[in-house]
Amino acid sequence: MRRILSFLVLGFGLFALGVRADDVPEGPVSLSSPGNILSVTIDAGPSGVTYSISRFGEPVIDASRLGLRFKDARALATGLAVTHVETRSVDETWPLPWGERAEVRNHFNELAVDLREVREEKGLDKGRSFRVVFRLYDDGLGFRYEIGKQSGIGAVEITDELTEFKFHDDATAWWIPGRQWNRYEYLYEKTPLDEVTMAHTPITMRTTGGLHISVHEAALLHYAGMSMRRVGPRQFVTDLAPWSDGVKVKTKAPFVTPWRTLQIADSAPGLINSDLILNLNEPNKLGDVSWVEPGKYVGIWWGMHLAIESWGSGPIHGATTENTKRYIDFAAKYGFKGVLVEGWNEGWDGDWFNNGDLFSFTKPYPDFDLEALGKYAAERGVRIIGHHETSGSVTNYENQMADAFKLYEKVGVRQVKTGYVANGGEIIRRDKKGHVFNEWHDGQFMAEHHERVLIEAAEHKISINAHEPIKDTGLRRTYPNWIAREGARGQEYNAWGEPGNPPSHTAILPFTRMLSGPMDFTPGIFDLLFEKEKPDNRVETTLAKQLALYVVLYSPIQMAADLPENYEKRLDAFQFIRDVPTDWADSRALTGEIGEQVTIVRKDRHSEDWYLGSLTDDHGRLLSVPLNFLTPGVTYKAQVYRDGLQAHWDSNPYDMIIEEIEVTSADTFPIRLAAGGGMAVRFTPAQ
Amino acid sequence: MRRILSFLVLGFGLFALGVRADDVPEGPVSLSSPGNILSVTIDAGPSGVTYSISRFGEPVIDASRLGLRFKDARALATGLAVTHVETRSVDETWPLPWGERAEVRNHFNELAVDLREVREEKGLDKGRSFRVVFRLYDDGLGFRYEIGKQSGIGAVEITDELTEFKFHDDATAWWIPGRQWNRYEYLYEKTPLDEVTMAHTPITMRTTGGLHISVHEAALLHYAGMSMRRVGPRQFVTDLAPWSDGVKVKTKAPFVTPWRTLQIADSAPGLINSDLILNLNEPNKLGDVSWVEPGKYVGIWWGMHLAIESWGSGPIHGATTENTKRYIDFAAKYGFKGVLVEGWNEGWDGDWFNNGDLFSFTKPYPDFDLEALGKYAAERGVRIIGHHETSGSVTNYENQMADAFKLYEKVGVRQVKTGYVANGGEIIRRDKKGHVFNEWHDGQFMAEHHERVLIEAAEHKISINAHEPIKDTGLRRTYPNWIAREGARGQEYNAWGEPGNPPSHTAILPFTRMLSGPMDFTPGIFDLLFEKEKPDNRVETTLAKQLALYVVLYSPIQMAADLPENYEKRLDAFQFIRDVPTDWADSRALTGEIGEQVTIVRKDRHSEDWYLGSLTDDHGRLLSVPLNFLTPGVTYKAQVYRDGLQAHWDSNPYDMIIEEIEVTSADTFPIRLAAGGGMAVRFTPAQ
Repeated sequence: MRRILSFLVLGFGLFALGVRADDVPEGPVSLSSPGNILSVTIDAGPSGVTYSISRFGEPVIDASRLGLRFKDARALATGLAVTHVETRSVDETWPLPWGERAEVRNHFNELAVDLREVREEKGLDKGRSFRVVFRLYDDGLGFRYEIGKQSGIGAVEITDELTEFKFHDDATAWWIPGRQWNRYEYLYEKTPLDEVTMAHTPITMRTTGGLHISVHEAALLHYAGMSMRRVGPRQFVTDLAPWSDGVKVKTKAPFVTPWRTLQIADSAPGLINSDLILNLNEPNKLGDVSWVEPGKYVGIWWGMHLAIESWGSGPIHGATTENTKRYIDFAAKYGFKGVLVEGWNEGWDGDWFNNGDLFSFTKPYPDFDLEALGKYAAERGVRIIGHHETSGSVTNYENQMADAFKLYEKVGVRQVKTGYVANGGEIIRRDKKGHVFNEWHDGQFMAEHHERVLIEAAEHKISINAHEPIKDTGLRRTYPNWIAREGARGQEYNAWGEPGNPPSHTAILPFTRMLSGPMDFTPGIFDLLFEKEKPDNRVETTLAKQLALYVVLYSPIQMAADLPENYEKRLDAFQFIRDVPTDWADSRALTGEIGEQVTIVRKDRHSEDWYLGSLTDDHGRLLSVPLNFLTPGVTYKAQVYRDGLQAHWDSNPYDMIIEEIEVTSADTFPIRLAAGGGMAVRFTPAQ
Repeated sequence: MRRILSFLVLGFGLFALGVRADDVPEGPVSLSSPGNILSVTIDAGPSGVTYSISRFGEPVIDASRLGLRFKDARALATGLAVTHVETRSVDETWPLPWGERAEVRNHFNELAVDLREVREEKGLDKGRSFRVVFRLYDDGLGFRYEIGKQSGIGAVEITDELTEFKFHDDATAWWIPGRQWNRYEYLYEKTPLDEVTMAHTPITMRTTGGLHISVHEAALLHYAGMSMRRVGPRQFVTDLAPWSDGVKVKTKAPFVTPWRTLQIADSAPGLINSDLILNLNEPNKLGDVSWVEPGKYVGIWWGMHLAIESWGSGPIHGATTENTKRYIDFAAKYGFKGVLVEGWNEGWDGDWFNNGDLFSFTKPYPDFDLEALGKYAAERGVRIIGHHETSGSVTNYENQMADAFKLYEKVGVRQVKTGYVANGGEIIRRDKKGHVFNEWHDGQFMAEHHERVLIEAAEHKISINAHEPIKDTGLRRTYPNWIAREGARGQEYNAWGEPGNPPSHTAILPFTRMLSGPMDFTPGIFDLLFEKEKPDNRVETTLAKQLALYVVLYSPIQMAADLPENYEKRLDAFQFIRDVPTDWADSRALTGEIGEQVTIVRKDRHSEDWYLGSLTDDHGRLLSVPLNFLTPGVTYKAQVYRDGLQAHWDSNPYDMIIEEIEVTSADTFPIRLAAGGGMAVRFTPAQ
């Protein structure tokens, strides 16, 4: 088997730390990552506490402020002194019940710095203390605030987190605007760092020196989501999504904030190959999660986007018993585990966008026999995938949630796609008196709502695939039933055409949105032009690129999103979708430049097969990758799905070659991608 | 053995061309490269003839003008019609007597378009004709003008070549200024393409879409060197270095121009891995060249730059018999083939910079016994490397050249380093009456001078290493005794400190200057700070990076440039210089970004050993490469010379780790480069 040589990393001289508690240090406190790649320095002066980050001795983040501001108390920001420092080193491996790899290595050095107010004035919050913890990996770092139980801090309302990020170098940034009406569903901007206004995370950049940095957060629980707001040249501050009353976070000591994370790599694929976000989350809280089932699904969905079916009742109602049976039969015939059914429940016929309280999550439409379909599916080895569109009326949903999951559990549903179609800042929260409050999709209310849903769903062995969600911060480690989510511009924009996703979109996602976790992008559209249904719109990829998406855009659940009849017209290409797994023993990004191209290989968790996906933006590319991920000495059959000689996303999207060749780990594999094209390969050990 | 899979390339559908002569075509004429990656379109309209280049169907070069302008005749530019088109396809392999690889594949489709004037006016050059030939490779293209023997064109004076390059996309360009006082010895500029003024070639750029393009020329013979002058947004025109009278080229039909070349690759290493320039040169004209001897050398040189020795006579004269013997002994002891001796001949004591006619190339200084030293060297298996500094007085040199080579041949010299230290445009040409004319280092006069030197030297089995030369255009294929040259800012600038070469310099050279051919950079300075000699100056690299240069910067002759005593202080590191060969069976760039980092591996031509060199600019980097270039199933001993944990070019340049590990082709090899650092590795099959 191939091994990653570790001699160099070990040879770099691991700081022999163990757990160590120092006396109060003189001056700044520093610590390096295990391979001495990254280091942090924390400096507490009269005007505040700062951290700075360097890499190989060169500055990456200049001295940047730390602190919290409160509604009814003095900020924890100035007049602080270091009272205690602890360091420790961890190198452990933990299993992923499902994911990009079977095991994750967690290798970091940690610096914990206790800070305490030293003010002399009377009546102020003298003596309050908190801890800042930095975990330094060779490929990034996370840090958070930990506020312990203490007399000076009880219930608190955080009005601002003061955490700054002062980037040392200029950079090009790929980003979507934070706190906007369309949640996270924007095309990415590519601008100089100093043209960023306010950005959702992950925001990813390439510095003038070639460093790739992605800023995000990990373990967003009981706290508000963070955006990055630019406040000066290369200078950003944390901007938390507020509650409807303007307060950012309502909590009480003891509490910890989410980790603020920086992934830092020399190459763009290095960002993808990092497990930083998962490592900074807490371990699985649910115990046995063998009922969480990765897999592929089809469903009643794309027809609505093509406007040939409807969510609501009527002549083209999609979620009928008959139509669902047709999808179940199709799934059974071609080996799909799930059939998503949207528009099955009452509520879709009124002005649901403006009144989500119309939705019932337990009342099927009369033409949809949920119970019979559950049985029909089970007899065919298929499961119905449930659907809970809340339209953002979250209190309405929470009131019905327990019954809804109970019903679904009864009919054999193991996954539910939830939906929060509401403008940003217009989630409906009601208090006990029924008063309405507007909340953000990434505010504390929704962070806590999603956790409530996960816990309730887990009671019923149900996994959640949230659309219009809060962003992913790696909580799938803690709640492995959070199986996927949307949180970016998905396939449906191609049907809507306002505009569709340009060829570059899926070459940006792997380096931005996908760094946060799985996305239910719903790839696999085979009728790329839908001339019959929506001739003005189209999918801006080649056919081969639709296949590549199954490997490139990781999700433990992958939809074959097109209509069954479109697959049956191209069974040769469909074979790849039937073959490709969704749960992996290993994953590696091999090539990539943000917004240009990416190549990822993944090993099936249940066989010796490897899969390769490669895609490009609107430029054709000629790449090559070594096949040294394959087992040496074994001959593999490579089933190749690639752009034809004349393929071009615009002029000739269907031109595709499917062929089979023999390869070994010693080979170098050429990847020819047409403009807007892609390649998908299955490598199987030859018999 | 590892193979590069060719199935995809073949599968792309080779145009079945053969040699084909078409009738006069209607409208534009097009042809694609063998793998249908690049295509050219030639269009002849009333206002001129244009070519345009696309890649994967997307424009790279927009319609750009072709043509020539003459002193005493109408330009061949407008009023032209296509009269004949020929295409052919070539796929051949040819051997390199010495070089980066043993064999070169030459695989192209060729389009030859004959154009003829169609003017009706009387007395004009009606009926003159010429041919434009395009050779399309998958990794680039070359094109040139071919003017046949014909009644309308006899002796011609070309006043301008009209060839344009209209780049379709914006780009970042790395370039040095064309036609300046310091020849090619500038630090590279990195600017937007539209801030380039006039640039020497190769000029290399990365487009906004991620395409890497390098423009240069091949086979510059009997013609003037080309610069690229910007004349509009993303629009450049060929600017030929003029003769002293302003005419650019003096020739007569039939003649061909040099090839104008575009290397085009998706990745920066792709530029390095192209053999385009060599392929466009004519085959070896010298026959048996077994007397051309790649190898390593030391010499009397660095001491002059440190000002502890002198070229001229006097108390610190470097080229004394005694000192030369010391170097010969050192070379013999440590396995070097050559000892360069500068300052051995008369002429150095006057104002040689302003009067190169002082130089004699046959009269040694009295304290330098050339004949005895030749014998002393031969007895020890070493050869003296000769030195001919002309100070740009070329006619003086040409007058003595035959005698000079004869003398050197007699004493066993097989290589001569020539020098043309004169300001740009101030080469001294004298006519038969002794009148002085000032010429450019890259003008036609010098192109022809260098060819005369090569031919004369070959008569004496002598190879030429020209400093302050004309740029390399691949003529080593035709004249394999052109063994190296300078033509860029070399090591000596670090001793001069005006300023020295910043850490990025050698991370730019592989993607710019080195694309043209070998460079005698003279790496291997071990005393990086020369506190004793020039404490204000220094080498801005780590020690490990000095070793990496031997692999990264290809030359068939490599100097160990430092003083012998500095090597004897660090024999452990010196071992790599002793081991590394200079002639290769194979070479591959594995990683690279222009101006940031580069990793190259090469296989020794005379053993199964592989060598790796990797280096970075002023940013530390963590890279990794698959070792799949090694033979599968063989265990290799890797001798690793790498930056120490605390290494940094500025603060800690000597921190280096030397270690030995075992590896196989299945391994992935981590490369940790300190800021300004490097790594060198020798891979030897374990016994």
